[in-house]
Amino acid sequence: MTATITISTDFGLTDGYVAAMKGTILTINPAVQIVDITNRISPQNIKEAAFILSTVYRYFPAGTIHIVFVDPGVGTRRKAIVIRTPIADFVAPDNGVLSYVLRDLSHNTNRVIPETLEAVTITNTKYWRNPVSHTFHGRDIFAPVAAHLSLGLPLTEFGQPITSINTFPIPEPRKSPDGSLSGEIIHIDSFGNMITDIAEQDLPGGTLIFEIIGKTIHGLSHTYGEGKELLAIIGSSGYLEIALNEGNASVFLQAQIGTGIKVQVTSSNE
Amino acid sequence: MTATITISTDFGLTDGYVAAMKGTILTINPAVQIVDITNRISPQNIKEAAFILSTVYRYFPAGTIHIVFVDPGVGTRRKAIVIRTPIADFVAPDNGVLSYVLRDLSHNTNRVIPETLEAVTITNTKYWRNPVSHTFHGRDIFAPVAAHLSLGLPLTEFGQPITSINTFPIPEPRKSPDGSLSGEIIHIDSFGNMITDIAEQDLPGGTLIFEIIGKTIHGLSHTYGEGKELLAIIGSSGYLEIALNEGNASVFLQAQIGTGIKVQVTSSNE
Amino acid sequence: MTATITISTDFGLTDGYVAAMKGTILTINPAVQIVDITNRISPQNIKEAAFILSTVYRYFPAGTIHIVFVDPGVGTRRKAIVIRTPIADFVAPDNGVLSYVLRDLSHNTNRVIPETLEAVTITNTKYWRNPVSHTFHGRDIFAPVAAHLSLGLPLTEFGQPITSINTFPIPEPRKSPDGSLSGEIIHIDSFGNMITDIAEQDLPGGTLIFEIIGKTIHGLSHTYGEGKELLAIIGSSGYLEIALNEGNASVFLQAQIGTGIKVQVTSSNE
Repeated sequence: MTATITISTDFGLTDGYVAAMKGTILTINPAVQIVDITNRISPQNIKEAAFILSTVYRYFPAGTIHIVFVDPGVGTRRKAIVIRTPIADFVAPDNGVLSYVLRDLSHNTNRVIPETLEAVTITNTKYWRNPVSHTFHGRDIFAPVAAHLSLGLPLTEFGQPITSINTFPIPEPRKSPDGSLSGEIIHIDSFGNMITDIAEQDLPGGTLIFEIIGKTIHGLSHTYGEGKELLAIIGSSGYLEIALNEGNASVFLQAQIGTGIKVQVTSSNE
Repeated sequence: MTATITISTDFGLTDGYVAAMKGTILTINPAVQIVDITNRISPQNIKEAAFILSTVYRYFPAGTIHIVFVDPGVGTRRKAIVIRTPIADFVAPDNGVLSYVLRDLSHNTNRVIPETLEAVTITNTKYWRNPVSHTFHGRDIFAPVAAHLSLGLPLTEFGQPITSINTFPIPEPRKSPDGSLSGEIIHIDSFGNMITDIAEQDLPGGTLIFEIIGKTIHGLSHTYGEGKELLAIIGSSGYLEIALNEGNASVFLQAQIGTGIKVQVTSSNE
Repeated sequence: MTATITISTDFGLTDGYVAAMKGTILTINPAVQIVDITNRISPQNIKEAAFILSTVYRYFPAGTIHIVFVDPGVGTRRKAIVIRTPIADFVAPDNGVLSYVLRDLSHNTNRVIPETLEAVTITNTKYWRNPVSHTFHGRDIFAPVAAHLSLGLPLTEFGQPITSINTFPIPEPRKSPDGSLSGEIIHIDSFGNMITDIAEQDLPGGTLIFEIIGKTIHGLSHTYGEGKELLAIIGSSGYLEIALNEGNASVFLQAQIGTGIKVQVTSSNE
């Protein structure tokens, strides 16, 4: 069985930082498959890393080990953690970067790890590079821990069990008494498509009207190429997206992360 | 035998879209080698993807499976296809992105698939992700089909045979009665080197003069470092290129895709 | 045993050049692990490639083969070389790109290869692509040579032994009679952190004061998140770095490669 380790960082692609992590992993497990999720997270943007991770981890083989290394607190007292889930292991700083993953798996929004999952802090220096740099735990702690995990070591080898982690509040759409739904933009992809916090299952039945920055969109589209200029569509992650046909919706609307969106239902007999 | 799957997309490197395709592939065939050709095709630029693919597929192991996913029509009625050739399999939307490949293999410029090749439309949902997103066929159809192909399934498992595909007209140089040759720029690489539609074998014998945007270049160079400012050279893909020694020819000349170039022969006794 | 080959180039990520090298390698050794160090070296910047390589090669498995292909002189008479060290093999043009590697391994700054290392020029065309393009030796010479090396061929198969290579003068800090140290910026990473030529072991004991472009920094920091605006810190490669907490030090100071830095010791009783 070939193990897979993924890497998500804000290191960019110009320097050798990501390669140093890969070399460290291959020194411990030469047969592992290493896949970059992205190394272009905005510098130190924990929420962006958390969201992008949440859109991909499900698509990897069971047992894949995901290293998420966006870590403004490197070298300070923030903990490093491993969470083992039925789908995947996650190796990350305890800074909120696993907030979406924990929400998905615990079906709640608090920071308590469900009893069905296993989690530890990374404290056993036996599996770290020696000496450990103060400034590059990705290479010296996270990469070797992930590599040793891929060899099948039990989680308890790496440190003490923990029962909760740090999370940030994940935006959730609010339902108004009149039946309308208010959400917000939580991610803008490189095409300029704006992904909202409104999941497909949140949408009411009936014909929908979407309002964002003074623009109104009538009805859900099924494809980006449907001919309308501005589209409301269920994107590949299962969330409502606002897109511009063959254009950049985010630039067109001058919208940002946090921009509000309102969904209303028209009377089905109108 | 390790199979190889390549990926060419316009997804960029910031989001998790390419990683979701890779995870899907590894879930089906954990031992496959996955190589990115490029994920930085200009958004929805079918011609650019077609050209870049044409410059690399020959260099991969026989039997490599190339996924080309530049797909302005995702979710609409354009077909998805697989073409099997002696060199490689290609999994792509039927939107012209295989135009150069078909020209290379059929030695003609029409859209008929030679009888020596095998081709199908991708219609058998058995090998797709379930459910299929309307917006991300790369992850839900192309990636799993390529992964199953890499396991050795016959092409006919995936859908019905087809005998022609959609192609775009590939620029071809025109010969004038005076022996001169008129071509055009078909690709500009990231160094600013401008690749023309004039192949090495199209060039007449004798000493050549090249004219582009009012500039004249005397003779073919053999290396980029030959000391001339503006160079005409046979590039690594076998086409005539215009390059600037230690500079960006495209910026220097303000040339674009489609800019014309003229090649003349001087009397060999001059 | 899975062999690893790394690639460092200035090819960028838009075209198919790097992929053509990878395909060539996999055609010869389908089971090799290929890792990109970086393909975003500034065009033809030999010193940058040399430095980045020096920060990562130690972290790869013993026997890894590093292709470094930044080659302004492609097609001219510069030699191509292989150096075998206890840690790794290096396949590169003989243009200085291995200057740091040779300094690390020879503990001197001249260009003589220590007798304990093996080195050859690449001259045996048997292991090259046939025909060889004048413009793309990365694909036609370096990639196939590295792939054949990964299959275990002896170095002498590839060409004649050599005893010296071309190197550039590596900046070294200068000690003044008053005990202060003068160094310079040798690399700026994509976070804007400025890496100097002053190694951790060069620093004198006592409390240090750093001067750069009219700014003064008191004392060494241990982490990027320590609260100071401008920081002096030992970075992950073991060199003194100047960083800006949650910012871009290089932009803030308007500093460049070559900008000077001075280190002084305050009286420990002050």
